[in-house]
Amino acid sequence: MIIVMKPHAKEPQIQEVLHFVHNLGLEPHMSKGTTVTIIGVIGDESKLVNSNIELLQGVDKIVPILESYKLANKQFNPTPSIVKVRDIEIGGDALVIMAGPCAVESREQLLQSAHAVKAAGAQILRGGAYKPRTSPYAFQGLEEEGLRYMAEAREETGLAVVCEVTSSRAVEAAVKYVDILQIGARNMQNFHLLREVGKTNVPVLLKRGLCATIEEWLNAAEYIMSEGNKNVILCERGIRTYETATRNTLDISAVPVMKMKTHLPIIVDPSHATGVRAFVPALSKACIAVGADGLMIEVHPDPAHALSDGPQSLDPEAFMELCQELRPYAKLAGRKF
Amino acid sequence: MIIVMKPHAKEPQIQEVLHFVHNLGLEPHMSKGTTVTIIGVIGDESKLVNSNIELLQGVDKIVPILESYKLANKQFNPTPSIVKVRDIEIGGDALVIMAGPCAVESREQLLQSAHAVKAAGAQILRGGAYKPRTSPYAFQGLEEEGLRYMAEAREETGLAVVCEVTSSRAVEAAVKYVDILQIGARNMQNFHLLREVGKTNVPVLLKRGLCATIEEWLNAAEYIMSEGNKNVILCERGIRTYETATRNTLDISAVPVMKMKTHLPIIVDPSHATGVRAFVPALSKACIAVGADGLMIEVHPDPAHALSDGPQSLDPEAFMELCQELRPYAKLAGRKF
Amino acid sequence: MIIVMKPHAKEPQIQEVLHFVHNLGLEPHMSKGTTVTIIGVIGDESKLVNSNIELLQGVDKIVPILESYKLANKQFNPTPSIVKVRDIEIGGDALVIMAGPCAVESREQLLQSAHAVKAAGAQILRGGAYKPRTSPYAFQGLEEEGLRYMAEAREETGLAVVCEVTSSRAVEAAVKYVDILQIGARNMQNFHLLREVGKTNVPVLLKRGLCATIEEWLNAAEYIMSEGNKNVILCERGIRTYETATRNTLDISAVPVMKMKTHLPIIVDPSHATGVRAFVPALSKACIAVGADGLMIEVHPDPAHALSDGPQSLDPEAFMELCQELRPYAKLAGRKF
Amino acid sequence: MIIVMKPHAKEPQIQEVLHFVHNLGLEPHMSKGTTVTIIGVIGDESKLVNSNIELLQGVDKIVPILESYKLANKQFNPTPSIVKVRDIEIGGDALVIMAGPCAVESREQLLQSAHAVKAAGAQILRGGAYKPRTSPYAFQGLEEEGLRYMAEAREETGLAVVCEVTSSRAVEAAVKYVDILQIGARNMQNFHLLREVGKTNVPVLLKRGLCATIEEWLNAAEYIMSEGNKNVILCERGIRTYETATRNTLDISAVPVMKMKTHLPIIVDPSHATGVRAFVPALSKACIAVGADGLMIEVHPDPAHALSDGPQSLDPEAFMELCQELRPYAKLAGRKF
Repeated sequence: MIIVMKPHAKEPQIQEVLHFVHNLGLEPHMSKGTTVTIIGVIGDESKLVNSNIELLQGVDKIVPILESYKLANKQFNPTPSIVKVRDIEIGGDALVIMAGPCAVESREQLLQSAHAVKAAGAQILRGGAYKPRTSPYAFQGLEEEGLRYMAEAREETGLAVVCEVTSSRAVEAAVKYVDILQIGARNMQNFHLLREVGKTNVPVLLKRGLCATIEEWLNAAEYIMSEGNKNVILCERGIRTYETATRNTLDISAVPVMKMKTHLPIIVDPSHATGVRAFVPALSKACIAVGADGLMIEVHPDPAHALSDGPQSLDPEAFMELCQELRPYAKLAGRKF
Repeated sequence: MIIVMKPHAKEPQIQEVLHFVHNLGLEPHMSKGTTVTIIGVIGDESKLVNSNIELLQGVDKIVPILESYKLANKQFNPTPSIVKVRDIEIGGDALVIMAGPCAVESREQLLQSAHAVKAAGAQILRGGAYKPRTSPYAFQGLEEEGLRYMAEAREETGLAVVCEVTSSRAVEAAVKYVDILQIGARNMQNFHLLREVGKTNVPVLLKRGLCATIEEWLNAAEYIMSEGNKNVILCERGIRTYETATRNTLDISAVPVMKMKTHLPIIVDPSHATGVRAFVPALSKACIAVGADGLMIEVHPDPAHALSDGPQSLDPEAFMELCQELRPYAKLAGRKF
Repeated sequence: MIIVMKPHAKEPQIQEVLHFVHNLGLEPHMSKGTTVTIIGVIGDESKLVNSNIELLQGVDKIVPILESYKLANKQFNPTPSIVKVRDIEIGGDALVIMAGPCAVESREQLLQSAHAVKAAGAQILRGGAYKPRTSPYAFQGLEEEGLRYMAEAREETGLAVVCEVTSSRAVEAAVKYVDILQIGARNMQNFHLLREVGKTNVPVLLKRGLCATIEEWLNAAEYIMSEGNKNVILCERGIRTYETATRNTLDISAVPVMKMKTHLPIIVDPSHATGVRAFVPALSKACIAVGADGLMIEVHPDPAHALSDGPQSLDPEAFMELCQELRPYAKLAGRKF
Repeated sequence: MIIVMKPHAKEPQIQEVLHFVHNLGLEPHMSKGTTVTIIGVIGDESKLVNSNIELLQGVDKIVPILESYKLANKQFNPTPSIVKVRDIEIGGDALVIMAGPCAVESREQLLQSAHAVKAAGAQILRGGAYKPRTSPYAFQGLEEEGLRYMAEAREETGLAVVCEVTSSRAVEAAVKYVDILQIGARNMQNFHLLREVGKTNVPVLLKRGLCATIEEWLNAAEYIMSEGNKNVILCERGIRTYETATRNTLDISAVPVMKMKTHLPIIVDPSHATGVRAFVPALSKACIAVGADGLMIEVHPDPAHALSDGPQSLDPEAFMELCQELRPYAKLAGRKF
């Protein structure tokens, strides 16, 4: 941590800061300039977290040096993590594709989706049983019934299954049926829920919040990991900006940024990022080229009659075609698919 | 709802849309231009919510006309709502000030805070017992112990008390101790939690999410109200933008916008909006002038030793002085304080 | 400037940085921690501006300490500046109101506007002769003819006049007719134009760019001032965010932030900030309460037939009423109006 | 254009709107619902541009249907445009790479850069002679001297050259020396400058403004094209968002969006988008995969001593290596390189 004093801060003010730092058991290093004095603080920065040094007289601002997340931090864990889901390795050589409908609507719709995405080459089936919807009057999901269909689809196809959880009750139910628990964008800072999934031993897909910074996102992962569950997969799904030509703005740079900051695997969801199915193929290729470990893509057997997010869903034919187009990109990026 | 056809959409495509709308039991009105045809749809718009009309051939886009929230909508409930908390009326003539520490840290700290804010003129004591913190290693709150201190502070001072809830368990505990349940910014779209507080009969203070639109915010209120709890108070607390000179950007225009769109009362939290106590007084005056029904201000007996958000907290003297300065502004705005 | 080394940077890397800093004639101060070493650099920071120290091996990042603007900086010029425009003092005791139509449309429309805003109490007439419009097919302004009407309106009413300039040619013309040159939001970083108005001795109203930071805005002022023209007035006019309920988001906190960072006066334009005339009165009061030195408000004799920005313009009656409502707020804020 | 009346608007209000539309020579189509009436307006929408219909009694809002840009609009010009620069075709089969230093610093530095980027395979040399810098105290460019070096580099290497222009004077000079005039992000809505380059017959590279919408960007292209110069190349270079891990946020979705909305070619500048050279290779691959017509990449013979943007510049070896890595991606995307 660096403490920057105000220009022309008085000597007693500087001495008080030095004294304050010493009392916390830390070592201050002073650099005195003609106008500004700065004080470097060396040692366990966590001692300073709640210290409010910026309120001491003469202090201008505080500049933190170390990131607040540890378990998710590549500095302390330089080897890339591989999250195993049944026989699938996420974060390894394979390009992992999670596909399926936004919402589980019926047994038939889900099984149809499962067979279709399996046939095209996806390894994991997505499908929402607990739907967080902006309006209370929109379709909210089949809940446990939906989970049961997910498990059935797994039996039939051998696909692993991922499902969003939105409450403790949903976590309790979902651990009995699914292979990956998903934390949705709106719950990325629902810290209670993060702790709950952190207490399970089920892999967690952590979507980025609509306006979460990279740092907040990694701290959300840290919440899960600090409870003991190290199997976290990050998922970039677009952030909120002023631009309205797409539903959200896909922050594709987040992939190389994350590859520098964390050992956790990262996938991308171009369906939610853009909200328009016509853009999904081009962006899927870009995500593989940029180094993502996988993709999450919405596929619905009949998008025109989907109960949720129809306009961003591919139909089975389009998804099949897309997977074909993605194969050479995966190969070029050194990924098995 | 308005359906805009693509330029030069073909006649059979237009006919199919008309047919589709008819089949939903709605009445289409066509306006045919030289390049573009538009189709107005009259009737119960909710029938169209999951219809995916935009996926029909030849459709360019859909423009919704009616807002998706009803109970919170001023159009259907033109009289301003007054939320009663003990003998305090929020949304009426009074300027209501909620003040206190970010976090309840100890019995003594809370009681000191309570007496200080009472003396200055605040009517409601704020204090966090369940703290949502970005890092899992930061102070997380005293939980039920904190709630007990809140209740004790109420006994001692007669102040009403408001406390954030972050989980179903917290709601269960809080309803026994506090007068207002607060939904924090990070949980504004935690729909499960919204439903939980909606099932109680305790007034709810609903903070705006960091990147929530006005429309999403009102839909969040609708979640609470649709469960039966109509006592919702909105709280603007700054939104996330590119500007970093303040912690968030106070969207002061949200106050007149909300006064036009909803009958619910709205207060403003300038402490969280800016993150800097030096800016709180000027902004508090502005909020009264713009028409807010109240303010939420962080006050700590000893900001330099606060466990959370010290830099944005006023000390008791500064808060006392601020309240004095606010009185003529309240009077000018036609508010009792 | 502070140089933060990467965790576990090697000794020779640290030595190279120290050496590099020495060679620039600056003095490094090293603080060595268990994981991270930081190096404070004292002296003339401008020597480091183009040094690219962050590219030396082992360097993690650079944290600048001093702001890059000097002439606009309150630290070096603590006394608030007063910009004199004829007999009006902007930044002093008076609340200064600039009002008038978005665009000068005709001699008659401008003179009508001038008389109306004069009667209500405004001291300065605004009116655009060079209009920057998003579409090339929208009305672009009367150019020099418009300037002549501005000068005529001044003769008739005694109001000072302000007009936007969008090119060197416009500056050349405008200096002959108007009292204040306005730099619009879209040109805030048109550095060539900033230098041009900096070479005149005419006061400059510098609007904030749509996505300019406080720091960039002050650097834009610095461009003008560094050419010799110290008469700069800042104008907050809303920033671009994700929220669409208002045309832009009025960043009202910019007023107290600027009062802390610069000695230059600052006014607010609530008409452009919101784009909706219904919100102008409430926000105008808020701006006075927050400490703004003045307001810029769009007034048109017949908003329904305005060629530009009609929906955000007040008509003369509404403006007259608003000025009456503002008087007690001005008085309360210690302003003459 | 669609006119949406307020809920329960009165009959005479509706009649007045119909009358108003008729008087403009346009044809209104009314759709009357139980709560809301909407009026579709068919015909030449430009007649409505300055009509302020939203100010008529009972009108709630206006929904425009047609885009305001025509010449840049794919609807009216469905064939992709190819911009020819010497023997290079931008927007055709080739992947076009523009590379070189942020600023021209000296004859030697530029010639070195030119030979390096030529050797790696770039077709166009970039280099700034007029630098728009945030601070007036930063290096501002060599101006016409820099342009002469650009021309010399072209003679020596056969590369085409592109250079930013920031004023009419710069345009006048640049047309004598360079093959492409660049409009930088900060000048994207400097409409005077857009008209100036529109009057030349030199191809224009139009960078997206830091917070420009897709629509505003296309309208800026329209300014240039409406003056007669149809040779416009778009360049996505990152937008401003709340995220600070990268300098800007690369809006990669802008590429497929533009391919849908306009016939103009589009390239991407990953160097400015991220500000960090480590991220340039991964993003370059992604941009090719997503369908961009080319790339603009900063290359400097000695980034550590660059006078501008050193940290985002590749050195010649890294650029050579990158071009090698890009070849198979270009091939896969069906591009010659």
